[in-house]
Amino acid sequence: MAGGARTGPSRAVVASAPSQTLSAIRAQVPLVHNITNLVAMDLAANLLLAVGASPAMVQAPEEVEDFVARADALSVNVGTLSALSARAMAAAAREAMAQGKPWVLDPVGVGTTRFRSETVERLCRLRPTVIRGNAAEILALGDEEQDYALGVDSLISPEEALDAAHDLAKASGAVVAVTGPIDYVTDGRRIVAVANGDPLMTKVTAMGCALTCLMAACCAVEPDAMSAAAHALAILGVAGERAVEGATGPGSFRVRLIDALYNLDEATLDDGARID
Amino acid sequence: MAGGARTGPSRAVVASAPSQTLSAIRAQVPLVHNITNLVAMDLAANLLLAVGASPAMVQAPEEVEDFVARADALSVNVGTLSALSARAMAAAAREAMAQGKPWVLDPVGVGTTRFRSETVERLCRLRPTVIRGNAAEILALGDEEQDYALGVDSLISPEEALDAAHDLAKASGAVVAVTGPIDYVTDGRRIVAVANGDPLMTKVTAMGCALTCLMAACCAVEPDAMSAAAHALAILGVAGERAVEGATGPGSFRVRLIDALYNLDEATLDDGARID
Amino acid sequence: MAGGARTGPSRAVVASAPSQTLSAIRAQVPLVHNITNLVAMDLAANLLLAVGASPAMVQAPEEVEDFVARADALSVNVGTLSALSARAMAAAAREAMAQGKPWVLDPVGVGTTRFRSETVERLCRLRPTVIRGNAAEILALGDEEQDYALGVDSLISPEEALDAAHDLAKASGAVVAVTGPIDYVTDGRRIVAVANGDPLMTKVTAMGCALTCLMAACCAVEPDAMSAAAHALAILGVAGERAVEGATGPGSFRVRLIDALYNLDEATLDDGARID
Repeated sequence: MAGGARTGPSRAVVASAPSQTLSAIRAQVPLVHNITNLVAMDLAANLLLAVGASPAMVQAPEEVEDFVARADALSVNVGTLSALSARAMAAAAREAMAQGKPWVLDPVGVGTTRFRSETVERLCRLRPTVIRGNAAEILALGDEEQDYALGVDSLISPEEALDAAHDLAKASGAVVAVTGPIDYVTDGRRIVAVANGDPLMTKVTAMGCALTCLMAACCAVEPDAMSAAAHALAILGVAGERAVEGATGPGSFRVRLIDALYNLDEATLDDGARID
Repeated sequence: MAGGARTGPSRAVVASAPSQTLSAIRAQVPLVHNITNLVAMDLAANLLLAVGASPAMVQAPEEVEDFVARADALSVNVGTLSALSARAMAAAAREAMAQGKPWVLDPVGVGTTRFRSETVERLCRLRPTVIRGNAAEILALGDEEQDYALGVDSLISPEEALDAAHDLAKASGAVVAVTGPIDYVTDGRRIVAVANGDPLMTKVTAMGCALTCLMAACCAVEPDAMSAAAHALAILGVAGERAVEGATGPGSFRVRLIDALYNLDEATLDDGARID
Repeated sequence: MAGGARTGPSRAVVASAPSQTLSAIRAQVPLVHNITNLVAMDLAANLLLAVGASPAMVQAPEEVEDFVARADALSVNVGTLSALSARAMAAAAREAMAQGKPWVLDPVGVGTTRFRSETVERLCRLRPTVIRGNAAEILALGDEEQDYALGVDSLISPEEALDAAHDLAKASGAVVAVTGPIDYVTDGRRIVAVANGDPLMTKVTAMGCALTCLMAACCAVEPDAMSAAAHALAILGVAGERAVEGATGPGSFRVRLIDALYNLDEATLDDGARID
């Protein structure tokens, strides 16, 4: 319920309306530095442009620190990890931490290989503002012994990962977002659920990765990370619900989603947002 | 002729209907590990999702072997080759061979540079299940002295490469698919032709590369590699024929193709498939 | 005014009509070798295919020189620079210079980091045929002390960069194109303005990068670099104006732009081109 989002018990957790964050992005045009995977680059950059942010994809170890100094927020995504990009990610995250700039981590496929798990573990120690993953990834982050992951598409419900998310938030100091049919955001004490979106979003590659970049844009303008993460989920989810009308499959849906984000007006967003 | 595909002399070569392979992908959701080129990643991943598979683009030498162990099939594409990715490709292919998992090779632009030709030659020795290329690439693979290739777009008809395909299949042990206006699949003894598709497909970048990934998905569920390759050609070709209706150019065609794959029903596929 | 483009004082500067260049691309199908950034690859390749060229994205230091020898033109873009790609860019540009083949440089984000600025400076010494950037990039190239750049999206008008463009052209020997609401092309002596395009083009990622690749295609068939650059601007700009009709945001605009380029007829192009 949209009304519930702004008048119910969640008020204490997410005080502001998603439209405030969207408006702030459009007004401030934050520079979002993304070290994201090779599959996500196109969608993420176009999604950030559509929402009003300014994306940059700078990833050489030689220059990421210089660029973080200019950026308003950083997103890091290990989807197509390499030894070189792992170095760049760590350098950029360390610089963001040092400068007090928000940064968001997407631990794609953590738990599927040792190289990936070790890299993500190191990144988690660099005080990410938000960690966003699917249920398998959040479970894998909390329990290195168990093998939860099947590729990059999670078959586990986000509800099964709530305890792990809670623990991860407390251990890392990050806000943790577990995404799925319903999304959850927790800081280890409080939790909010966001019930927007459409199943067709899972049929467009890198949609979760692009969401992570959107979370970074929201963190650039909204200092409360719980609110920033929840608002990013609502913005993408409400736009997705609009985009699915008239879509005939994931190809047209993706095109319509970019248009819907570009045209999303604040009243539609706040009315449609289901944050509880 | 659709009827011919299921009742004519090809019956002995491709026994099952393409819809059986498509249904199996949708039911089993195979995890397809792609080490593909940077241009193809977005289209290939979206195409695999649309058809019902689960794509993953893992490419660091440090982790490809771990990931092959989880995957149901592997695709390797040298389009934007580097020394690093060549190492990853060889390691992944070797692991797939060792584990008896199907893997498909796309020798993009072989023959245009020495580095590319040498890399592809090494990969060919690792027992690919299927090799898919255009006529120039298949000819270049068979005759290293001659310079057949003009960039990545072949001007040679697939019919001119049939002898080379035949020889390559015998030498490598792979099923060889030569694509063009009519596609051919041979195992060195038998040959089938697939006459689906639309010329507009050549105006969308990485369509052949995405097809290679689709062949890997088909190999994951269909043990007969001749059938798997022919079915992949029919699936993409029939979807392409549907997508071209109402398209006004390669931009809208690409969007409609993803939708058409997502919506492709089994009767339409089998009726439309022209496998001979 | 379209008439002005072909009858006014610009006649001496850009003698031929843009349609001549477009027709030559379609007739000759030039092989355009692009070492472009990871975000731009998909759009650039599809745009080149739509316009009738043959794109190739070959970028390993081990093979770029071999490939330049085959190509009709080269484009180099530092958007997602790495130490490795910087080596490949320099090797390819040096080979293009040695063979007298046209090559176009896109100094994305020059001035934002030292690594980027030093790499671009080295490339500028390898006699690019055309340098294309936004106002901030062209200003940064002319004055290394000043910090002009804000991310990759320029907030400075192209008019403010005309003196810098003029100086850069004289210093480098390249034709310099400064793009923005109105685009300018100068060889250090003469200047032309191109007033085509639509603001929505700035909401699609990598549009400027794809334009750079189109300039390389134009240089492959039109030996006068001033004309080639101006024609590329007119071709993309007129197609953009057509594409915006019926677009409902940057997602649909991008799709329609590829279609518009594919369908662009010569009379529409020459009537719509505003080259002065």
